[in-house]
Amino acid sequence: MEYSAVNTIWVLLGAALVFFMQAGFSLCEAGFTRAKNTGNILMKNLMDFCIGTPAYWLVGFGVMFGMGTGLFGTFDPMIRGEYGHILPAGVPLWAFVIFQTVFCATAATIVSGAMAERTKFSAYCIYSAAISLIIYPISGHWIWGGGWLAQLGFHDFAGSTAVHMVGGVCALIGAKILGPRIGKYDKDGKPHAILGHNISFAALGVFILWFCWFGFNGASTVGMESDALMETAGRVFFNTNLAAAMACVVTLMITWIRYKKPDVSMTYNAALAGLVGITAGCDAVSPLGAAVIGMICGVLVVFAVEFFDKIAKIDDPVGAVSVHCVCGATGTLLTGLLATGITTEAGLFYGGGWHLLGVQALGVFAVAAYVAVVIYIIFWVIQHTIGLRASREEELCGLDLTEHGLLTAYAGFAMLPDTTPDDAGTATVVSGDIPVAEAVVVKKVPSFDAGTVPKLTKIEIICKEHKLETLKAAMMQIGITGMTVSHVLGCGVQKGKPEYYRGVQIEATLLPKIQVDIVVSKVPVQQVIETAKTVLYTGHIGDGKIFVYDVENVVKVRTGEEGFDALQDVE
Amino acid sequence: MEYSAVNTIWVLLGAALVFFMQAGFSLCEAGFTRAKNTGNILMKNLMDFCIGTPAYWLVGFGVMFGMGTGLFGTFDPMIRGEYGHILPAGVPLWAFVIFQTVFCATAATIVSGAMAERTKFSAYCIYSAAISLIIYPISGHWIWGGGWLAQLGFHDFAGSTAVHMVGGVCALIGAKILGPRIGKYDKDGKPHAILGHNISFAALGVFILWFCWFGFNGASTVGMESDALMETAGRVFFNTNLAAAMACVVTLMITWIRYKKPDVSMTYNAALAGLVGITAGCDAVSPLGAAVIGMICGVLVVFAVEFFDKIAKIDDPVGAVSVHCVCGATGTLLTGLLATGITTEAGLFYGGGWHLLGVQALGVFAVAAYVAVVIYIIFWVIQHTIGLRASREEELCGLDLTEHGLLTAYAGFAMLPDTTPDDAGTATVVSGDIPVAEAVVVKKVPSFDAGTVPKLTKIEIICKEHKLETLKAAMMQIGITGMTVSHVLGCGVQKGKPEYYRGVQIEATLLPKIQVDIVVSKVPVQQVIETAKTVLYTGHIGDGKIFVYDVENVVKVRTGEEGFDALQDVE
Amino acid sequence: MEYSAVNTIWVLLGAALVFFMQAGFSLCEAGFTRAKNTGNILMKNLMDFCIGTPAYWLVGFGVMFGMGTGLFGTFDPMIRGEYGHILPAGVPLWAFVIFQTVFCATAATIVSGAMAERTKFSAYCIYSAAISLIIYPISGHWIWGGGWLAQLGFHDFAGSTAVHMVGGVCALIGAKILGPRIGKYDKDGKPHAILGHNISFAALGVFILWFCWFGFNGASTVGMESDALMETAGRVFFNTNLAAAMACVVTLMITWIRYKKPDVSMTYNAALAGLVGITAGCDAVSPLGAAVIGMICGVLVVFAVEFFDKIAKIDDPVGAVSVHCVCGATGTLLTGLLATGITTEAGLFYGGGWHLLGVQALGVFAVAAYVAVVIYIIFWVIQHTIGLRASREEELCGLDLTEHGLLTAYAGFAMLPDTTPDDAGTATVVSGDIPVAEAVVVKKVPSFDAGTVPKLTKIEIICKEHKLETLKAAMMQIGITGMTVSHVLGCGVQKGKPEYYRGVQIEATLLPKIQVDIVVSKVPVQQVIETAKTVLYTGHIGDGKIFVYDVENVVKVRTGEEGFDALQDVE
Repeated sequence: MEYSAVNTIWVLLGAALVFFMQAGFSLCEAGFTRAKNTGNILMKNLMDFCIGTPAYWLVGFGVMFGMGTGLFGTFDPMIRGEYGHILPAGVPLWAFVIFQTVFCATAATIVSGAMAERTKFSAYCIYSAAISLIIYPISGHWIWGGGWLAQLGFHDFAGSTAVHMVGGVCALIGAKILGPRIGKYDKDGKPHAILGHNISFAALGVFILWFCWFGFNGASTVGMESDALMETAGRVFFNTNLAAAMACVVTLMITWIRYKKPDVSMTYNAALAGLVGITAGCDAVSPLGAAVIGMICGVLVVFAVEFFDKIAKIDDPVGAVSVHCVCGATGTLLTGLLATGITTEAGLFYGGGWHLLGVQALGVFAVAAYVAVVIYIIFWVIQHTIGLRASREEELCGLDLTEHGLLTAYAGFAMLPDTTPDDAGTATVVSGDIPVAEAVVVKKVPSFDAGTVPKLTKIEIICKEHKLETLKAAMMQIGITGMTVSHVLGCGVQKGKPEYYRGVQIEATLLPKIQVDIVVSKVPVQQVIETAKTVLYTGHIGDGKIFVYDVENVVKVRTGEEGFDALQDVE
Repeated sequence: MEYSAVNTIWVLLGAALVFFMQAGFSLCEAGFTRAKNTGNILMKNLMDFCIGTPAYWLVGFGVMFGMGTGLFGTFDPMIRGEYGHILPAGVPLWAFVIFQTVFCATAATIVSGAMAERTKFSAYCIYSAAISLIIYPISGHWIWGGGWLAQLGFHDFAGSTAVHMVGGVCALIGAKILGPRIGKYDKDGKPHAILGHNISFAALGVFILWFCWFGFNGASTVGMESDALMETAGRVFFNTNLAAAMACVVTLMITWIRYKKPDVSMTYNAALAGLVGITAGCDAVSPLGAAVIGMICGVLVVFAVEFFDKIAKIDDPVGAVSVHCVCGATGTLLTGLLATGITTEAGLFYGGGWHLLGVQALGVFAVAAYVAVVIYIIFWVIQHTIGLRASREEELCGLDLTEHGLLTAYAGFAMLPDTTPDDAGTATVVSGDIPVAEAVVVKKVPSFDAGTVPKLTKIEIICKEHKLETLKAAMMQIGITGMTVSHVLGCGVQKGKPEYYRGVQIEATLLPKIQVDIVVSKVPVQQVIETAKTVLYTGHIGDGKIFVYDVENVVKVRTGEEGFDALQDVE
Repeated sequence: MEYSAVNTIWVLLGAALVFFMQAGFSLCEAGFTRAKNTGNILMKNLMDFCIGTPAYWLVGFGVMFGMGTGLFGTFDPMIRGEYGHILPAGVPLWAFVIFQTVFCATAATIVSGAMAERTKFSAYCIYSAAISLIIYPISGHWIWGGGWLAQLGFHDFAGSTAVHMVGGVCALIGAKILGPRIGKYDKDGKPHAILGHNISFAALGVFILWFCWFGFNGASTVGMESDALMETAGRVFFNTNLAAAMACVVTLMITWIRYKKPDVSMTYNAALAGLVGITAGCDAVSPLGAAVIGMICGVLVVFAVEFFDKIAKIDDPVGAVSVHCVCGATGTLLTGLLATGITTEAGLFYGGGWHLLGVQALGVFAVAAYVAVVIYIIFWVIQHTIGLRASREEELCGLDLTEHGLLTAYAGFAMLPDTTPDDAGTATVVSGDIPVAEAVVVKKVPSFDAGTVPKLTKIEIICKEHKLETLKAAMMQIGITGMTVSHVLGCGVQKGKPEYYRGVQIEATLLPKIQVDIVVSKVPVQQVIETAKTVLYTGHIGDGKIFVYDVENVVKVRTGEEGFDALQDVE
């Protein structure tokens, strides 16, 4: 027989598992971002794979594995050429092609997380295609296609550099060019936490990725026909698992110390950090080496996330840059230190001298520089043609509705207003403008004896969700210390553009609004109304309404104070 | 050795993957339907597999693979007969049986999606058993059990017809007999979109199905012991993936053009359309052929969904008929055009003449006709005995509560009222019946000087969730142009039947209600109250309450209008 | 070749599948518990694996598989010893180690479900480590490491006892020591249902577990190099699937009869019951035997859940004890009855006499006793040092916030107040203490003519979510028969400790509160206010506020009654 059944099975099952990583990435990215962008994230994760698949078939595979030169393979649309020089022993061509296709798609999908919640969908489709068509295949040719790095002895077993760092560098450049999400930084540059909408999805995504990583790393032996390959496969499985586990343990401890409590989402991120880190050398290091790599990545991911968030001020909603770029590069370099010499040249700590480390460093640097330059050009061109970033209005509204006409990914669930300020820190109400003297003019016949009990009034404001933070800030500025916010549906005749769900037009007569209830006594009613009007006014339909009611009494439970007194303390 | 280790591993892992499709179908169907039926959908998807497993063991397998005749196998309870004539080389009997069991369950599970949200659970259990016991095994015998279609050379590699079209035809007949969900069509037959409750689940379901399809199609070689089989397996993996990807790309483009925006749920559906389409010929066509099949299915799924929704008016909540029936048949026929002749007779476009196409068409037609007749009879019998459709009250309330006593699948989440009208378009309030002259009689001492400021009144209506649309329509008819809707819990002493959760009785003293707030000035308060009473009255406990409050002022933010004027415009 | 490719592939893929069970357990446990503890559950499930992995590498594996004695293996940190005596034929060491590592982690993860929602995270990390370091490896040595039970012929193919019962016994002891969750039992010991927050997650978790069980049981042949092994693997797959399906069918029927409706969550639990039960003898029994084991487990799980809930009063939120402990022991014993003699000694019903049953019973008893004693000691030590149970305040608040600083796992979703009473049945308001005579003193100028229409007043109470049940009970005691509850966000300046999300401090100025609206006429306003104050008062910031409004009218829809009359009936 020309082919080996065990090799073919191994490669094909690996391909299926690596495909399934798309589900893991989708859930991770959706879970760590806000609900209003869920459909958009899911769509991007689907389409990078669906565009990448034909792109790799038409161009990418030839570029990566065609004989060509040390820098570039060949142009071979639909893979009709000869690949005998590079095919693993006993593996049919199409089995190898599908295996490589899913790896390519993994690199492309990494980017969507870092650029989530603000990238135009059309722009995403274009740069995602570019990654699969040309960016990934060229550096992939250098590393795995017999190119110049391969010839130098660069060791990247399953793709810490070839896959993860390539995706991570694109993510870094992209997130930097895009700028942060609205509300991520206030005017002083202080970062705000924007909570992900579903930690369970994110956790499931991580578990799926970890599961599939056994295929990603394990099947990268691309064969099981010799004792050495089988021994390697066993070690790869064990090392992969150990590095991920150790990264989590270390991150757990660091976050416990730094934030006083063990951080759930950071620890889940750490699993991915450990997995990315061990990917380059999972075949080449001992279990002890794998544990060390995992621990280092567990430390790095925490500080990298903080660095990009607080110092570099690059807004990466899911930590993709810290995980894939930082830990991808680190894992590749650490292989140069920790390789024991079993499957590759020995690393520095195992008596192999500086050579492997030098080659690893050269490879990391060369690939990072190459990818950064090319993706920068692509982003620049997109930015100056169709545009890279969604408009302010689209971003505030959520990309589900504006990009896909999807009212919500969670129909039937009541969603809270987005608490990200739409003008972080800029909501300033000049109280001098408000005619305080005219306050309470509307109220002609107070139902209480004003001499006995100060008048209490409830002001009920119905407005758009994303105005909440600005309204709240303005109210606090005029002395309102408490309010009650609830989620309601505003109903009115709609005159907007129709949206479609599965081809059927949706009559969206119920739109999500927030209702803010404020009870005042000292602060004049008219001042509250004028302040609300100032903050809420845009001149568009749907700016909101304000209702005023009489209140007979207020009681504060803790102190037993009533009426005017119950409203005076800050609490 | 009698058996082949690689063949056995291949078949068993394929079985595990195809089993896992149950999770994919469950999530897809649950995600594309409403939250109030989630537990019911999950239960149906579990039970079709759990009933199908013993049914296939007791009857189905013998019928399908027993020697028998060209039309029917044998009756062989618990599979004690001899199957040497049909067992794949080197595969032990029970490995083959489990592989076939999970395929059978896939056919059965397809039906639940099209008939979701309105089918009685007991009826579901019965017809699901019938599919596994007899319907699927008989046509399966024709195609894969050595029956008459197999003898003619009908080619259905992994079951576009044998599995998907069989399920899809049952789904079509079932959805037609059941009729649409309440509120799906208004009295003029115009379809309304009923949004799925969790697009993330649906997307995860699709990713799981795609992942498992590598087992479904790939392992259908039922062996890896020859170069030809390994080459086929590689091609099957690549073709399967490519067809799914191309279908998504095409659907993306079509929905982008037709609906102005790329549709998330339709594009995810397209992945399944491509997968179903390629299933019959994934071994027999070239990658180019696979791409063509995928693209055709990507076009078809969009128009099929619209056709069934808008023209045939068959309500298929998840698009199961369009995906499984339409694309299943299409994929089988396209194999007759695009088969290259590697693993089967060549198709029309590859010089094989009309023969294969003719056989494929005959097979599709024969199986569709057979399945349609038998399932129609079964549905007819169920309808005239225990009943097929849930009652109107059960459907409005949701099958989770009425069929399973499950208060909600999402305890702790606030759920919005169902915005599907319970009487699409029929809410007519004859305003002449309302004693307008007596309006505001309750109000004896207005707190405002009526001469100066027109009286403003808030009417707060607490009622059942499913009355919302009817109430809203009635209010608009009497001139109410705006209202605020919120989700509340109504509390009262319950006297209903007890419900159980894991054997423990639930004290459901907090029931979901909606609160509709309307502020009026021109429209008489009494007219609003009488209209609400007319619409909400059923005579049963829980019809609701109406509260009336004085309002001191109203301000419209956009225009700055106050009081009476702020309420006059339609917005 | 020293190694066998098919054996190695089989074992490694089994390891990947068994790893993925962690995702299944996480989703199951998260789904069956409340949303406020989701992040904590996910974190526990992650960390038991991440702590268990190095623990097993450093200590556990040596203890379990080291040559040692019949009772204990060896101490072999980082697995540097020789294991030729126990390694399966043709499987490299590290492939075997990773396979065993994931089994160990499964035992550890079972415990978290039964002890969910009230266990301290630090305590969890410690006892979880103890299970992987020592508890599981010692009994594992007896059964699978060549220890005394193995020598006696104890048959536990894939771990009904070695994995599931070990985890289940720890779960039982732990849940007993911890005591029930607050609100689970009222003062009369009557259990209350505490609904899980996401049945879809739980269902997906079960499907994932079932899928992975094919690896758990199937790959436990640890080889595929002989006809017997392949035949066994096929039978294992079929039996595993059949037992799970039959368990579901039986549980469906029992719950349908006992609770009048088929119970969703119990039936999903039954799948796990069947899977646990068949695990010991899946290789040794016939399909008929598997069906019987499944059916028995389907019966057992229902009654076991009820027994622990209602009679033993051990609060096991996810049914872990019933599934893993009860069905694990039962499956092991049933193997002694139903083993056909193919792969092991024949059982009692197949002519093998009492020997196997006796050995099985001895093994179950010995392992249960050993585990119970050791885990009891560990829990006792933890309880008397760092503490085992979260504080009352932490539990009421939810462990996500108190243990991890995670405001919510579902940011953006409106969450309902927890309807579990915080003092089940102890909310007693002595109405004699309330100065009824002084009622309505605040109201000086009623806007209604009290002689014509009795005064109607709305009292709006804003308070903490977990006070709802107590408040409701107190209100009913003073004659309030209806109220409306809604979920709102209370806003005030926060002075608490900062919380971090991914290293960024969160400004939590919007906190979830509930708003209870009560409209009264007969019951004095002042009595309602005083009762609310009594119930809500703790003296801490955030006790709440009470607002009083005039109501102009009330209408009851069903009866048409207005004003005073509309409020009198109990409904």
